[in-house]
Amino acid sequence: MLENKTPSKTAISELGEFALIDHLTSSFNLKHKTSVLGIGDDAAVLKFGKDETLVSTDLLIEGVHFDLSYMPLKHLGYKAVVVNLSDIYAMNASPTQITVSIAVSNRFTLEAIEEFYQGISIACENYKVDLIGGDTTSSTSGLTISITALGSVSKKQISLRSGAQENDLLVVSGDLGGAYMGLQVLEREKAVFKVNPNSQPDLSGYSYSIERQLKPKARKDIIELLDELDIKPSAMIDISDGLSSEILHLSKASDVGFHLFEEKLPIDPEVIGICEEFKFNSTTAVLNGGEDYELLFTISQNDFEKIKNHPLLTVIGHAIDSKGGCQMINGIGHQIELTAQGWKSF
Amino acid sequence: MLENKTPSKTAISELGEFALIDHLTSSFNLKHKTSVLGIGDDAAVLKFGKDETLVSTDLLIEGVHFDLSYMPLKHLGYKAVVVNLSDIYAMNASPTQITVSIAVSNRFTLEAIEEFYQGISIACENYKVDLIGGDTTSSTSGLTISITALGSVSKKQISLRSGAQENDLLVVSGDLGGAYMGLQVLEREKAVFKVNPNSQPDLSGYSYSIERQLKPKARKDIIELLDELDIKPSAMIDISDGLSSEILHLSKASDVGFHLFEEKLPIDPEVIGICEEFKFNSTTAVLNGGEDYELLFTISQNDFEKIKNHPLLTVIGHAIDSKGGCQMINGIGHQIELTAQGWKSF
Repeated sequence: MLENKTPSKTAISELGEFALIDHLTSSFNLKHKTSVLGIGDDAAVLKFGKDETLVSTDLLIEGVHFDLSYMPLKHLGYKAVVVNLSDIYAMNASPTQITVSIAVSNRFTLEAIEEFYQGISIACENYKVDLIGGDTTSSTSGLTISITALGSVSKKQISLRSGAQENDLLVVSGDLGGAYMGLQVLEREKAVFKVNPNSQPDLSGYSYSIERQLKPKARKDIIELLDELDIKPSAMIDISDGLSSEILHLSKASDVGFHLFEEKLPIDPEVIGICEEFKFNSTTAVLNGGEDYELLFTISQNDFEKIKNHPLLTVIGHAIDSKGGCQMINGIGHQIELTAQGWKSF
Repeated sequence: MLENKTPSKTAISELGEFALIDHLTSSFNLKHKTSVLGIGDDAAVLKFGKDETLVSTDLLIEGVHFDLSYMPLKHLGYKAVVVNLSDIYAMNASPTQITVSIAVSNRFTLEAIEEFYQGISIACENYKVDLIGGDTTSSTSGLTISITALGSVSKKQISLRSGAQENDLLVVSGDLGGAYMGLQVLEREKAVFKVNPNSQPDLSGYSYSIERQLKPKARKDIIELLDELDIKPSAMIDISDGLSSEILHLSKASDVGFHLFEEKLPIDPEVIGICEEFKFNSTTAVLNGGEDYELLFTISQNDFEKIKNHPLLTVIGHAIDSKGGCQMINGIGHQIELTAQGWKSF
């Protein structure tokens, strides 16, 4: 029953992650009054009291999502929490609690797991969330991490993926491509180390990008800023799989198209330098790189004056009629259709 | 950093699961008003509205928690949900939502994963819970399942592990030991099949115990019954690791001891028969077997008349002063101290 004995059976990789979730869960209906929104956004929306409760969950597998040869366990614990909190912020909400479950093989000592929990603890302090539960078990191979984050937001403040309107501005926080290029640097150093175990990695000149990869930020500050500026994004998502993939998610959920302007893409000078060194197109790093955990959102044109020239926010495009699809417009006016080539685990 | 190069470092197996969780999480404090109770009961207790919200999570690893050579995927999906819901019922609460995350290796076809989700779907229907989210990813080996369940209960109805008082009666639902002996039968058939792949397993006469192992029930009916009988258990826990281990949890959380009477232990005749066939002590199956997912709870003696002779409930002992410890009293009046020899993943 389990082994793929019959060649006509379908390999999971044929679908990809998002189509797989859609396929598996499309027949599930919501029965409870408290279930406001199920699968399909950054977090589920529940209604237990006056405010909405958000729930988001991630499963991280060693060898698929992280490589412990260059990811210290403390950073991994920190990042695993941050990645989940980012999904809650992407609803324009505040995270409040997390559960953390881990499965560990006997390769890990107690001291190693303590380091991991130190990272969890620092993330809980920095983002003011409570660790309220979890499960701890052995595994037959490697480390598996499952984190569920809860958060809360008032109904009128919540930003789903589905609210973007034609002509809304497309805005991104911070800069993009750094986490991916940081990963390329780390992978290169790992390869060098394999050949020559006595080599000392020289990571100076790459510190910003490596920090983007090893110790990403969830943009709590942007949610607070939007609140101060009295802006409620019409739609929002966090950038975990690459800008291209996230724009397509907003497009599908909101039934709009997008024009994205290549020359507006915010990229740190260090990241551009690494791209040149690696002979890697920096636009590709931004579109398909992923793991930047910046926020991508749409706002009404009426809100433009409020964010104009803000150093943390960049208008990179606008929503168009859905028939126009999602297009990137380059420096000479050519349109290139966006495709989802973000990070895939399958 | 990761490999156990220094022999003085501590192996995780030296602590065991519960001490490990205590050790790793003891320095975490609850900061939010909405976090009522964190780690240490069957579920965390949160306060988002008028009622309490419960959150419980489990991580299940192939080769540690389940064996797909005799566990059909549909049953596995069903059981994975039921096991989590049982934790919510053990708070005297009703489950409302679940998230399901899976990591699957390329050994699994889409059709296999569909079967797994069919089991999830049937459990959601039977227990009236909504699937609201999850994550789907690839794994380097085998199947990993992470489920988080949410539920709700009014503050005055909630039953923690910590409320048992001296002289309270110790009550268990249903019967015990079946899931463990069902597993022994399945393991034997697997061993036979390995020697002779053409053998047809003869499982007649074991159907009750095998169903207890492959398709356990969460005791929704008992929570409804207690409500009808107007009984609020002073303390409650579900039996996942064996009666002995769960009694010790109640003892520690409530600071009481227990007297347990061996001759009162509810065991199905089929289970007694299998124990005889396997030359296995039936009391040991009950005390240490686990996975029965019955509810173990304490009630005031004043409530005794309400449950007396009820076919689904058995009084198996009572709470004593904590100095007395936890003792099983056998047919000839000997006291045997209970120890936690339940199922351990480490």
